[in-house]
Amino acid sequence: MIAKLLAPWERLCTKSKIMRFVDINLRGIGQVMFQNNPLTGLFFLAAVGWGSYVGGVPRVFIGGLVAVVTATLTAQWLHVDQEGLASGLYGFNAYLVGLALPTFLAPSPRLWVYIVLGGAVSVIATLGKANLLQTWSIGGLTAPFVVVTWLLLLATFAFSGIEGSLGYGDKVTPIDPVAAYPLNFYEFGEGILKSISQVFLKGNGISALFFLAGLAVSDIPAAVFAFVGAVVAVITAHVFGAETALITGGLYGFSPVLTAVALGAVFYRPSPRVVVYALLGTVFTVMVQGAMNVALKPIAIPTLTAPFVLVTWMFLLPRQCFESGRETST
Amino acid sequence: MIAKLLAPWERLCTKSKIMRFVDINLRGIGQVMFQNNPLTGLFFLAAVGWGSYVGGVPRVFIGGLVAVVTATLTAQWLHVDQEGLASGLYGFNAYLVGLALPTFLAPSPRLWVYIVLGGAVSVIATLGKANLLQTWSIGGLTAPFVVVTWLLLLATFAFSGIEGSLGYGDKVTPIDPVAAYPLNFYEFGEGILKSISQVFLKGNGISALFFLAGLAVSDIPAAVFAFVGAVVAVITAHVFGAETALITGGLYGFSPVLTAVALGAVFYRPSPRVVVYALLGTVFTVMVQGAMNVALKPIAIPTLTAPFVLVTWMFLLPRQCFESGRETST
Amino acid sequence: MIAKLLAPWERLCTKSKIMRFVDINLRGIGQVMFQNNPLTGLFFLAAVGWGSYVGGVPRVFIGGLVAVVTATLTAQWLHVDQEGLASGLYGFNAYLVGLALPTFLAPSPRLWVYIVLGGAVSVIATLGKANLLQTWSIGGLTAPFVVVTWLLLLATFAFSGIEGSLGYGDKVTPIDPVAAYPLNFYEFGEGILKSISQVFLKGNGISALFFLAGLAVSDIPAAVFAFVGAVVAVITAHVFGAETALITGGLYGFSPVLTAVALGAVFYRPSPRVVVYALLGTVFTVMVQGAMNVALKPIAIPTLTAPFVLVTWMFLLPRQCFESGRETST
Repeated sequence: MIAKLLAPWERLCTKSKIMRFVDINLRGIGQVMFQNNPLTGLFFLAAVGWGSYVGGVPRVFIGGLVAVVTATLTAQWLHVDQEGLASGLYGFNAYLVGLALPTFLAPSPRLWVYIVLGGAVSVIATLGKANLLQTWSIGGLTAPFVVVTWLLLLATFAFSGIEGSLGYGDKVTPIDPVAAYPLNFYEFGEGILKSISQVFLKGNGISALFFLAGLAVSDIPAAVFAFVGAVVAVITAHVFGAETALITGGLYGFSPVLTAVALGAVFYRPSPRVVVYALLGTVFTVMVQGAMNVALKPIAIPTLTAPFVLVTWMFLLPRQCFESGRETST
Repeated sequence: MIAKLLAPWERLCTKSKIMRFVDINLRGIGQVMFQNNPLTGLFFLAAVGWGSYVGGVPRVFIGGLVAVVTATLTAQWLHVDQEGLASGLYGFNAYLVGLALPTFLAPSPRLWVYIVLGGAVSVIATLGKANLLQTWSIGGLTAPFVVVTWLLLLATFAFSGIEGSLGYGDKVTPIDPVAAYPLNFYEFGEGILKSISQVFLKGNGISALFFLAGLAVSDIPAAVFAFVGAVVAVITAHVFGAETALITGGLYGFSPVLTAVALGAVFYRPSPRVVVYALLGTVFTVMVQGAMNVALKPIAIPTLTAPFVLVTWMFLLPRQCFESGRETST
Repeated sequence: MIAKLLAPWERLCTKSKIMRFVDINLRGIGQVMFQNNPLTGLFFLAAVGWGSYVGGVPRVFIGGLVAVVTATLTAQWLHVDQEGLASGLYGFNAYLVGLALPTFLAPSPRLWVYIVLGGAVSVIATLGKANLLQTWSIGGLTAPFVVVTWLLLLATFAFSGIEGSLGYGDKVTPIDPVAAYPLNFYEFGEGILKSISQVFLKGNGISALFFLAGLAVSDIPAAVFAFVGAVVAVITAHVFGAETALITGGLYGFSPVLTAVALGAVFYRPSPRVVVYALLGTVFTVMVQGAMNVALKPIAIPTLTAPFVLVTWMFLLPRQCFESGRETST
């Protein structure tokens, strides 16, 4: 059914350069969650739009679009490989940069210079990461987004022309146990949904449903792993006594959600062993989320999706353990 | 003589799966200092046992065992290469994780979940590091232990369910010169012995003798380099004016000891040039130990063996300088 | 004309081992800005000499010489490849180490031990980086200098035998907008010149002219890109509201100058596209300079040329985009 829907769109794109350009950018948005699918991109775009509208931050919605378009133009200027470009692989990091910068920074003319710069550089970082990592046949994931955004956010402390809302560097101290109060049923559900929407830096339950729908139209298992990843993350974080406000805000779950999708539904062929492996990775991502929250406190920047990138690389490198297993079992 | 002792043990292992399992875990413990030898592992185990008993922390002894057994089971579940498994290469990082977590964290039920999780993940990290580094034919050394333990320790600041004894993040300030008072002869000896035992996170002279004995039964030069490394480290740290309490506690020497053994007795074939090179690496490891003590102060985690890993990688990468030299001289 | 000047010098070097040794060290100094040219090295040496004399820190001039000579001897002892040695590739990192240590540390006998140690280890780090990076055919740039100097500077906080002038670790806070006051014309020029001289850790306009002259005798485009890089860096930093005192001191410009030369005149064949690319890299280096100033505040060490290294690696990795473009256009 989805295929039928997409066939006329693909014909349109073949005829019109403008439609193809739109298609590339939508796929770029879909690739944030590994989906090479313009319809998924449209769902994700709607989810971000809704979240930005409700949150009163339309600049986040616009920032994402500006950055992804900048990235596509930059990629064309750099003559990147056509296949990667058409699949949206040069867009998703920029899209996240474009969402993150206006989320963490105050509006100003220079913010838009920043977004364009970030979008362009993210393409170069993506190309670089790809060359770097092809030695081990693992992907760059959202590492270019993380690195470029970290650098641009850190720089705001040094530049008076860009104002941030990042607060100050803080001392590392143990959590106050009072902050880890029990979750009720409503908060549990809130934490799960927002864990999904925070992948796009949005804390909004309705957006989360759109994100799940966008995944489902392209790949049902991906939607299932996203949901299960969120559930596992919320439970794990709670059992270990993480700050409840962060859990319900989805801030302990967005990286584990991505880990669950990546390990469970994208890079490994599903099997019972892979499911266990993906769950182990998801649980460990929760630990790493806690660890990086702490480690970055003195320099006052958010982790972004670094915990996902770190753990997923760690769990993708030993892929020989699964490739051979896969061949034997199928 | 040692070979005669080990022959019947090896026959036993061939017959009994349980004995083979014990053998793998003992070799894993021996590999902390690069020895593929179950007897060495037994000596090391006894040394840790003695240190834990005297220190009143039996949970450290048990933690190490739980972690190494978890690692061996995980490695089997992941179908790792049989040769590496049988040599204990998937166990030593886990064993160190299992010693470090109960050393730095308060006892609690969740601590044991942590140890099992750390033991399992350390295998994945070991597999990943191996794939990562085979490009340059250098080993992962104890990097998986360092990375996994750092992450798990940092996370304790974020989780109220796990209590640490790591203190608080602190400002970087120059050392108070008063803290660097002269060593007397007894303290000098104490520093040397504890430098060796701190490789296993134990500050105990008798344990140190067991560690040296464990090395000697497998490889005399390794024992010599461990001892010489400790002497060089204590002298260097003292000459540069490091904190005396840290020197006598062995905390400036455990990484240099490992560097000395790795460069002098394991990875390069001995020659006068290699001895000078290993000494240079040992001295530089003392600097890096000081540097990392400082760099990690704001995030309140210990360096573990990171100085050893960093310097040994640095000194192993240019191996072409020695391989060619070796061929010419032999 | 320059070639005529160098021909008798080269003949002299062929005859005399001492002259060859001098030649290697001069080329090592020239390689700080990618020039395999003893005359360039002589100009650079004079510039550093003048800056050290005016600044009343002759130990900086001497430190550089001691370190580069140590490095050349170490490289010979390690039997490195003759071609790299003769081109000065094992000297430039050591030369910078030798300038940086006496710049940031107080004079003392142990400082000279430090400089010799740093010079020797920088060769090992250079060899290691070369092996590490040949996988991606990118150079180590000044990364060995940065890593070795960072470690040795950090260690001074832990050693009472070496006294630094690095201050204390500080909290990360946003810049006071008052510190970003408008530049007048004189300050603008000062910022540009010092951006060039700070590549060698000197804030001196006359030295800057010597540096430019040294570049020009070897490679005119390199001198042009150095100058343009400095102009772009000063303007960018000012437009974004960086601290004016840092801009006029050249501290926002030295890394961008190196990026501009590396991307514009050394590693890519010039073309309009490469010029735009190099400018983008130069602008981004200014951001990264701001970011790293902030990130390193808690551990109280200077960025050195790390922003240059990071951005230039990032912009060199996707070289396929330019190699194919180059072939098509020529």
